[in-house]
Amino acid sequence: MENSCTNALPLTVNSSQKKETVCIFGTGDFGRSLGLKMLQCGYAVVFGSRNPQMSSLLPSGAEVLSYSEAAQKSDVIIVAIHRDHYNFFIDLIEVLHGKILVDVSNNLKINQYPESNAEYLAQLVPGAHVVKAFNTISAWALQSGALDASRQVFVCGNDTNAKHRVMDIVRALGLTPLDQGSLIAAKEIENYPLQLFPMWRFPFCLSAALCVFFFFYCVIRDIIYPYVHKKENHIFRLAISIPNRVFPITALILLALVYLPGVIAAILQLYRGTKYQRFPAWLDHWMLCRKQLGLVALGFAFLHAIYTLVIPIRYYVRWRLRNVTVTQVINKKDDPFSTSSALLGDSYVSLGILGFFLFVLLGITSLPSVSNMVNWREFRFVQSKLGYLTLALCTAHTLVYGGKRFLSSTALRWYLPSAYILALIIPCTVLVVKFILIIPCIDKTLTRIRQGWERNSTSSKSLLLGKSDVSSKVERTWASEI
Amino acid sequence: MENSCTNALPLTVNSSQKKETVCIFGTGDFGRSLGLKMLQCGYAVVFGSRNPQMSSLLPSGAEVLSYSEAAQKSDVIIVAIHRDHYNFFIDLIEVLHGKILVDVSNNLKINQYPESNAEYLAQLVPGAHVVKAFNTISAWALQSGALDASRQVFVCGNDTNAKHRVMDIVRALGLTPLDQGSLIAAKEIENYPLQLFPMWRFPFCLSAALCVFFFFYCVIRDIIYPYVHKKENHIFRLAISIPNRVFPITALILLALVYLPGVIAAILQLYRGTKYQRFPAWLDHWMLCRKQLGLVALGFAFLHAIYTLVIPIRYYVRWRLRNVTVTQVINKKDDPFSTSSALLGDSYVSLGILGFFLFVLLGITSLPSVSNMVNWREFRFVQSKLGYLTLALCTAHTLVYGGKRFLSSTALRWYLPSAYILALIIPCTVLVVKFILIIPCIDKTLTRIRQGWERNSTSSKSLLLGKSDVSSKVERTWASEI
Amino acid sequence: MENSCTNALPLTVNSSQKKETVCIFGTGDFGRSLGLKMLQCGYAVVFGSRNPQMSSLLPSGAEVLSYSEAAQKSDVIIVAIHRDHYNFFIDLIEVLHGKILVDVSNNLKINQYPESNAEYLAQLVPGAHVVKAFNTISAWALQSGALDASRQVFVCGNDTNAKHRVMDIVRALGLTPLDQGSLIAAKEIENYPLQLFPMWRFPFCLSAALCVFFFFYCVIRDIIYPYVHKKENHIFRLAISIPNRVFPITALILLALVYLPGVIAAILQLYRGTKYQRFPAWLDHWMLCRKQLGLVALGFAFLHAIYTLVIPIRYYVRWRLRNVTVTQVINKKDDPFSTSSALLGDSYVSLGILGFFLFVLLGITSLPSVSNMVNWREFRFVQSKLGYLTLALCTAHTLVYGGKRFLSSTALRWYLPSAYILALIIPCTVLVVKFILIIPCIDKTLTRIRQGWERNSTSSKSLLLGKSDVSSKVERTWASEI
Repeated sequence: MENSCTNALPLTVNSSQKKETVCIFGTGDFGRSLGLKMLQCGYAVVFGSRNPQMSSLLPSGAEVLSYSEAAQKSDVIIVAIHRDHYNFFIDLIEVLHGKILVDVSNNLKINQYPESNAEYLAQLVPGAHVVKAFNTISAWALQSGALDASRQVFVCGNDTNAKHRVMDIVRALGLTPLDQGSLIAAKEIENYPLQLFPMWRFPFCLSAALCVFFFFYCVIRDIIYPYVHKKENHIFRLAISIPNRVFPITALILLALVYLPGVIAAILQLYRGTKYQRFPAWLDHWMLCRKQLGLVALGFAFLHAIYTLVIPIRYYVRWRLRNVTVTQVINKKDDPFSTSSALLGDSYVSLGILGFFLFVLLGITSLPSVSNMVNWREFRFVQSKLGYLTLALCTAHTLVYGGKRFLSSTALRWYLPSAYILALIIPCTVLVVKFILIIPCIDKTLTRIRQGWERNSTSSKSLLLGKSDVSSKVERTWASEI
Repeated sequence: MENSCTNALPLTVNSSQKKETVCIFGTGDFGRSLGLKMLQCGYAVVFGSRNPQMSSLLPSGAEVLSYSEAAQKSDVIIVAIHRDHYNFFIDLIEVLHGKILVDVSNNLKINQYPESNAEYLAQLVPGAHVVKAFNTISAWALQSGALDASRQVFVCGNDTNAKHRVMDIVRALGLTPLDQGSLIAAKEIENYPLQLFPMWRFPFCLSAALCVFFFFYCVIRDIIYPYVHKKENHIFRLAISIPNRVFPITALILLALVYLPGVIAAILQLYRGTKYQRFPAWLDHWMLCRKQLGLVALGFAFLHAIYTLVIPIRYYVRWRLRNVTVTQVINKKDDPFSTSSALLGDSYVSLGILGFFLFVLLGITSLPSVSNMVNWREFRFVQSKLGYLTLALCTAHTLVYGGKRFLSSTALRWYLPSAYILALIIPCTVLVVKFILIIPCIDKTLTRIRQGWERNSTSSKSLLLGKSDVSSKVERTWASEI
Repeated sequence: MENSCTNALPLTVNSSQKKETVCIFGTGDFGRSLGLKMLQCGYAVVFGSRNPQMSSLLPSGAEVLSYSEAAQKSDVIIVAIHRDHYNFFIDLIEVLHGKILVDVSNNLKINQYPESNAEYLAQLVPGAHVVKAFNTISAWALQSGALDASRQVFVCGNDTNAKHRVMDIVRALGLTPLDQGSLIAAKEIENYPLQLFPMWRFPFCLSAALCVFFFFYCVIRDIIYPYVHKKENHIFRLAISIPNRVFPITALILLALVYLPGVIAAILQLYRGTKYQRFPAWLDHWMLCRKQLGLVALGFAFLHAIYTLVIPIRYYVRWRLRNVTVTQVINKKDDPFSTSSALLGDSYVSLGILGFFLFVLLGITSLPSVSNMVNWREFRFVQSKLGYLTLALCTAHTLVYGGKRFLSSTALRWYLPSAYILALIIPCTVLVVKFILIIPCIDKTLTRIRQGWERNSTSSKSLLLGKSDVSSKVERTWASEI
């Protein structure tokens, strides 16, 4: 629901309502924009400034006073000042006692200072209730009507009442407050607006690298080789044929890489005989971006699907179909129907469609609002069981596709095998190792390790503890899959 | 998670639990439905009525008393009475002192009364704690098991404890309370259930108008013209060919209209030399419904994609392919392969696919749950950078498509150019103006304006202020794009 | 936003911050995992154990004491012990007075005990504030970095301050607390992690049954029949042709079954003359899983769409096209263009595309985050108006498809009609009955019933009540559709 104070609607301030006064320290762009918005939403606004006489550009209707005078006008003081200038607060400690100080500042770099700006402010003015808020909102968004992404205001603070006061103001401005707990969360909140898809960087770079490599690999095999050996100009393949070879290969490899870290982690746990040792940092990071890897893979699979479906529309395909028919007529060649070709071709397409369908399902369940609706057991079921089924179907799709091509004599060109053969290495490895891991005797050991059992500890103790503590039966269902 | 009190499950009320009593004023449909639901969820229910003796149809298990008697039975009184009849509350001011009054009423029109019903009730009974709730729930939904859309109950009120009491009741009924702050939000909450896609109306009407216009334009060019001039019956084109011309044109124009207001706003800011003047109302409204415009455009693009993919299945296409081949055989015409045709055709298709892919990505990131996960910087990156890339790809797709047709002689029919030429006007304009706006010297001025600089003010002052206030460096990244 | 304490990042505990101490009863896997996570997030952790000397495997940095000693170290005690062993709490009633006890336990079966574990604990230790939390989190997820599905922690408890303390701890661990109200919600929260798609079971089984039935039906008609009668080997149809017959049939029947219960409910209400009687349990359950039925139907429709789009790529189709052309050339048969065939074929495809498009729209609006953004009126509009339009379009698509086949002589094989004829029975019935229900005189009666009117009660009374209570005008818009 959009709240009352949007720019597009005429403003209806109830005159009988006593206006609440809010004080804003700082008359920079953000302070002015916030002040304007607050005036529009029915608040009285007092600016605090170093040089009240020199302050210009302020929204009409707002008062400008010195810091200490302004502070006395309101319980809530919004600090729209850069952290470097916080030192003047030392003179205001008395005046600010018991007031709510709202820190809206951001930094220029992630983790620029040892402590967050809000915590620093709280140290400077120990008597005040410091609340962190509004830093995720831009001055531009305040003025141009809030976009979706800028609706959310993370709020944190140690004093509950102060926090709730600020959250009410946030709501009154038509924004959505999100309580992030105590002031310790301020650092995270200050880093938040500086991020640019941190979890997507690795999957994106990896897929770009794979794309570039396989693009040139295919250009060599499919354009340069025929040109050199047969003087055939296949340059037109650049637009559709080669992308439609690169994209499915990238998709399949990325999908396999989603499941590879789980397999590695299982092997590591079996080898170590405990789950209480940390994984190496690279494995941790890899596991944390599996979702992003999978979604990038889905993007490539989607492109592959459309590139495949447009094949019959292409000029080249229609031209060839016409000429094959013409040749057939002229040469009076017989063209018997091959049931096995039909079945193999159809199976290959059918496997691909089913794999793509499950892949789309996985993508939909990874939408935040959907994954929030399912419990852990359901999420594991979808992401693990359906995930491996998707990988198996897509690998089978590529194998059956290969099945037809393997038989042709033109497989190797300049000793380079077809690109799809390279694409099969990782998926097949993952599937084989996973198959070994679910052999009952290995699976049983792994499950025990994941329930807290350690190979090197005295087993009597852990059994004893196991009996008196939280049942591991439910854990077992949780732990049965990485 | 679905809560305990669903209709489908047998009810397990813990008899050891002391029942809380809730009073409901009013025995209309909503009062009775709510009462029934509360009884099912383990509450004791007392109805207050003008004529307790005459009240019928009440759920069994509920008591019916006069208003004042009923009010004494409970701290929480749900007011399921139409606002026009609130005047009887004047006699109950004493009895209701300190009680929680839950206003569930709705109006028949948006902004029907100057103040909200809940605020009016709070004025009538100043001693009571008025809480607005349940108005978004229908009597039908209470009985038939809550659907998704009817799960959310917006709650607002000035007294925090009263609000939390009501929110607990909401949860106990299996619904989701959403705290909307103080009673000032009641007006918005009362208007909410009366809305029917307010932000979608303009995009919908606009796209309908575009569709109708281009439909008749294409009918004239593609059906009436050939019929008049060559007596050819092309009526079958109504089903697929013409929609597949109208839909992409509408999609492209709508997509361009998403980015046009941003360009206009930038020009306006450059002309005015300040960002602190309001945009005209039409521009404000246009900017607020850009998301909806974009999603409607995506819908048309989706239809275009499927209509294109079914082309080879069509009877007409297969018939023509057969007859072209037959003619080729009979006339022994040679059909040399044209690499340039293949490349041009494939490029055109490939550009369209990539544009569509990015368009789908934009659509996915505009899903509420996804856009809530990204920060402002990421959202701007996706919607602005990727958005312009999508527009550029789709425009290029149409231009390359045109490139083939331009050369043919049948371009003008009755002086009417091909429809896609009309479709290119707005997108090309937007792209050209945007290109001018990102020329460094213009971009620099615009960026300064968006950081709060004003052309007509004394620049010395703003620089001074700029130094001591919230750094505009972060702002710059925010403001670099409209 | 991801919170501060993720595994992948180096930990920055502010040493100036005084560490809060949390006590954990129980040294099983979950207790140890939670303790480790808490230590990583800057808490001091004290374990309480039956045999402090014998406890091993505990995270370094944590203290181990006896239950009563450990309890004295902290206000917050996390009870990571199986319910069967709660009896030792009887000795600790004194020590635990006023403390916050966090019950994290799960059961092995849904509704295993008459009351929830948390309520049982609250009865055992009446002086303590029991809060239910963390049971939806797995030990594995705590260690391997929280996945999306395991981020949410449902929290409930009777004491608000205790609940907020626990919610702060949840946030500090990088998880998302969700307030579920008072301790009565504990039963639901304990059942939650044991569920495996309870609402999807019926739609899934039903669709599986439909698929199997129609698969064998089509195998008999399309593979066995030609083999027996003409000795033709059509085994290759198993991969694409037959799935592409089974999937659309299943989709259409499931879509009709989404709207059938609404029609049945309307008839039942008309027959009974009241809405205040409960529907039979099977109808209630059916109505609650309509969304899931619709989404399964959408899945099959999606598969049908892709299976249809790949048709021109298939070997069989290309082979037939070539041979039809060759035959046409050799026999010098004329192949005149049939406008009616083209129009009929195109219309059939176009209806299917539009139906599928609306179906996808319905699917998108049923995403939790989207359906939460719309109000009841909008949701009804989309799901009911657009839903029936989708059903009508899809039924028309099948009818027009049938229109072409009906004329062919091969309709019956072994007295079995084409499968699509069976598929049309339920959709046509639903549409006809719905059409009868919206005839004004019937619709008026139904609307009155849904506004609370009862046929058997004295109408004077209900009119009287209707006047003084919540207006039913708004209700009418709500109730106009099931």
